Amino acid sequence: MGGPAADILIRDGRFAEGPAPANAALVDGGGLLMLPGLVEAHTHLDKNLIGMPWYRNEIGPRRIDRIEADRREKKRLGIDPRRQSERQARQTLALGVTAIRSHVDVDTEIGVANIEGVLGTREALAGLVDIQIVAFPQSGMLIRPGTLELMEESLRLGADVVGGIDPASIDRDPVAHLDAIFGLAEKHAKPLDIHLHEPGELGAFTLELIIERTRALGLQSRVLVSHAYCLGMEATAADALIAQLAELRIAVMTAGPPGRPAPAVKKLHEAGVVICGGSDGPRGTWEPYGTGDMLMRATMIGQRNGFGRDEDLELALETCTTLGAKAIGLDAYGLSVGCRADCVLVDVETVAEAVAAPPVRKLVMSHGRVVARDGALVDELSGGV
Amino acid sequence: MGGPAADILIRDGRFAEGPAPANAALVDGGGLLMLPGLVEAHTHLDKNLIGMPWYRNEIGPRRIDRIEADRREKKRLGIDPRRQSERQARQTLALGVTAIRSHVDVDTEIGVANIEGVLGTREALAGLVDIQIVAFPQSGMLIRPGTLELMEESLRLGADVVGGIDPASIDRDPVAHLDAIFGLAEKHAKPLDIHLHEPGELGAFTLELIIERTRALGLQSRVLVSHAYCLGMEATAADALIAQLAELRIAVMTAGPPGRPAPAVKKLHEAGVVICGGSDGPRGTWEPYGTGDMLMRATMIGQRNGFGRDEDLELALETCTTLGAKAIGLDAYGLSVGCRADCVLVDVETVAEAVAAPPVRKLVMSHGRVVARDGALVDELSGGV
Ligand SMILES: [Zn+2]
Ligand SMILES: [Zn+2]
Repeated sequence: MGGPAADILIRDGRFAEGPAPANAALVDGGGLLMLPGLVEAHTHLDKNLIGMPWYRNEIGPRRIDRIEADRREKKRLGIDPRRQSERQARQTLALGVTAIRSHVDVDTEIGVANIEGVLGTREALAGLVDIQIVAFPQSGMLIRPGTLELMEESLRLGADVVGGIDPASIDRDPVAHLDAIFGLAEKHAKPLDIHLHEPGELGAFTLELIIERTRALGLQSRVLVSHAYCLGMEATAADALIAQLAELRIAVMTAGPPGRPAPAVKKLHEAGVVICGGSDGPRGTWEPYGTGDMLMRATMIGQRNGFGRDEDLELALETCTTLGAKAIGLDAYGLSVGCRADCVLVDVETVAEAVAAPPVRKLVMSHGRVVARDGALVDELSGGV
Repeated sequence: MGGPAADILIRDGRFAEGPAPANAALVDGGGLLMLPGLVEAHTHLDKNLIGMPWYRNEIGPRRIDRIEADRREKKRLGIDPRRQSERQARQTLALGVTAIRSHVDVDTEIGVANIEGVLGTREALAGLVDIQIVAFPQSGMLIRPGTLELMEESLRLGADVVGGIDPASIDRDPVAHLDAIFGLAEKHAKPLDIHLHEPGELGAFTLELIIERTRALGLQSRVLVSHAYCLGMEATAADALIAQLAELRIAVMTAGPPGRPAPAVKKLHEAGVVICGGSDGPRGTWEPYGTGDMLMRATMIGQRNGFGRDEDLELALETCTTLGAKAIGLDAYGLSVGCRADCVLVDVETVAEAVAAPPVRKLVMSHGRVVARDGALVDELSGGV
C-alpha cells in the first residue's frame, strides 16, 4: 500500500508471519505496489452481455422502460445466467476483483433459474472468487404475485441476502414491500440489500421507513442500501438521515453516478457510515458501459465526488476494497497477517496514482494463488465459457 | 465507422479515390473498425506531470487555491513546458489523438516561456499532431498588470487563439476583461476561447456579455466557451442562451464533469450548438486523473449525460471527433476523400461499443503514416523526451 518493499509470507492461502520455510515457492513481486483484492459490492452477474454480439440499445428513457426491455431481451437474446455470470466473474478476476456481491433476478417468468445459474458459477469458481447472491425482485415483488415465494425459494437454494427495489415507485406500497422483505430477512436470518433509486423527498421517506424497521428489528450492520440517490439532496435534509445510518450501521453503496444526485462519499465516511463502491454491472441491456473494473470504479467515485487530494483518492479506493469488504461482511479481508491472501500488484508509485489512472494489473493473487498476470488470467485458468 | 469492410486508398497523406497504383504500400487493417483521428479540443499541454515523480496533492478546495498552487508548484517542481507538452502529445498520439487545442499559461512570473515551450513541441511534432495554442491568462489578466501585453506578445510569437478566464469571478470585472480580450482578437484577427467556470446566474450573465460582443463584432463561429457550467442550470433559463449560441455559432466545450452542473450535450446539439469534448489535461497539480485519452473522454461525456442508446453514444464520440474538429476549426477533417488520413483502428463491432468500454488502439495513423500500434508509438517514433 505504498510502504517500503517487503517480503511477504503466505501459508495455506493466508498472509502469515515468521521466516519462510526453505522449500517455499517464490513469486517475484518486482517491488510493485500491493493493493488488497478489489471488492465488487454491487453487480448483476446474471445479465451481462460479455462475449455476446453487440446489443444495439434503443430503449426509452424511463426506469420502467429499462426494466421491461431487460425482461424481454433476457429471453430474446438468450442470456444464459450460468455462462454470463462466469464470464463476468472471470473478466473481473483478471482485473483484481476477488469478492463479488451480485443481485440476481427473481421473477415470475424466469423463476429461480438465474439464482441457480449464479449458484453454479459460485461453485465453479470457489477458491478463486467469493460470490454473495442477493435474491433480487427486479421486476417488482408485490405487483407480481408469486415473486415473494420465489425469493424465499432462492434463500433455501443458497442465496445469501434478501433484496428489494424501490418500495414506493416500483412496488407502489413502501410499507408492504419493506414489511415483506424485512419479514423474510428475519425468518431466514439473512441480511438485506435494497436498491433505492427513489430521488429526493420520496427516497428520503422510504429511507426513513428502512431506518425504522432496522431499529425495531435490531438489524444493526445487517442492512445495506444501494444507490441511495436521495442522500445527494440538500445538506440539512440529508444530515438527519446520515446520522441514523451511522448509528444503525446501515451501509450505503454508490457507483459514483455521473450526472445525478448521489451520496457524498467523504461526508458519509466522516459521519461514520460505511460507504462502498459497486459497478452495477458491465455491458448490459440497461447500460453498455464498462468492464466491471473496480479500480476504474474507484476513479469514477473519486471524480464524481470532486476528489483531487491524495488522501481523498485513497478513500475512493477504500470504497472498492476495505469498506466494500466491511459493507458486505467479508471475513479475514485485507493485507494483515491472517487475512486471505488476495492482492493486486500494480506498477505505480502511490495508491492515489492507481486511482488517478488505473494501470495494468501486473499480478492478481486469490487465496494465495497467482490467478492473473498483465490483465489476463493465467493459462491454466483461461478456459473460456 | 461500422460500415462494411473496404479497401482505402491514401495518397500524399490524404484519403483518395480510384484504383491503387501497383507499387502502393499496403497496411493491413485486419477488418477492424475505423474511427477518424481523435480531437482534443481543450487541454493544458504545458503543465502536466507525465513521467515526473508522483505529486502528492494536498491543495485546498477552492479554484483560487488551485490556481495559486499551480503557479507555485510549476516553479518548485520544475515543470518544463517544452518537455511536458511533447510527453503529453506523444502519449495521446499513441491513443489516437491527432489534433489538439491547448491553452498555455501566460503570466507575469513565467512571461511567454510556456508559449515558447509548446511552440517548440508543435514544431517538433509537425506532421504527427496538429497543435493549436491558446494564450491563456490562468492567473488572471487585469488583476495582474502586464498580462495583457504578454498575451499580445504570445500572438506575435505564434499563438493561434486568444484565451480568457472567468471574467467576473477571477478578474473581478467582466466588462473590462471581455472588452480587452475581444479587442485583442479583433486587432490580431484571431478566434477566442474563454474558460467560463462561473456557475448559475453569474455565469449566465457573463455568457450574455460574451454573446453581446460576439454579435456586435460579427465574430460568428470564431468564439468557443469552455466548460460553461452555467448551461447546466434549470432549463428555462438556459434555453434563451442556447438559442443565441446556436445563432451566433458560438461553440461549447465540455469535459463531461461528473459531479457538477454542465451543458446537456444532446440538448445543445439538437439546438444547433457545436459542442465538443476536452480532457482538460491529464495528471496535473489541479487534478491527478486520466491519461488524456479522448475515447475515454467520450465515455465520460456519455456517462455524464446519461446516454445509454447507441445513437447517443455515437454523439458522445462525435464530440471528440467531428464536432471537436468543427469547434476548433480544423480543415479537411474526417474519413471522406480529400480529408487528412488521420484514423484509429479498434477491434469492436460498433462505434457505440468503442465508447462503452474504450478498447486498445490497434493502429493509429496520422497524415497517412502509421504512428502507433497496440497503444504504443511505433519504434521509430518512440524516442522519449
Ligand atoms: Zn443494481
Ligand atoms: Zn482548462
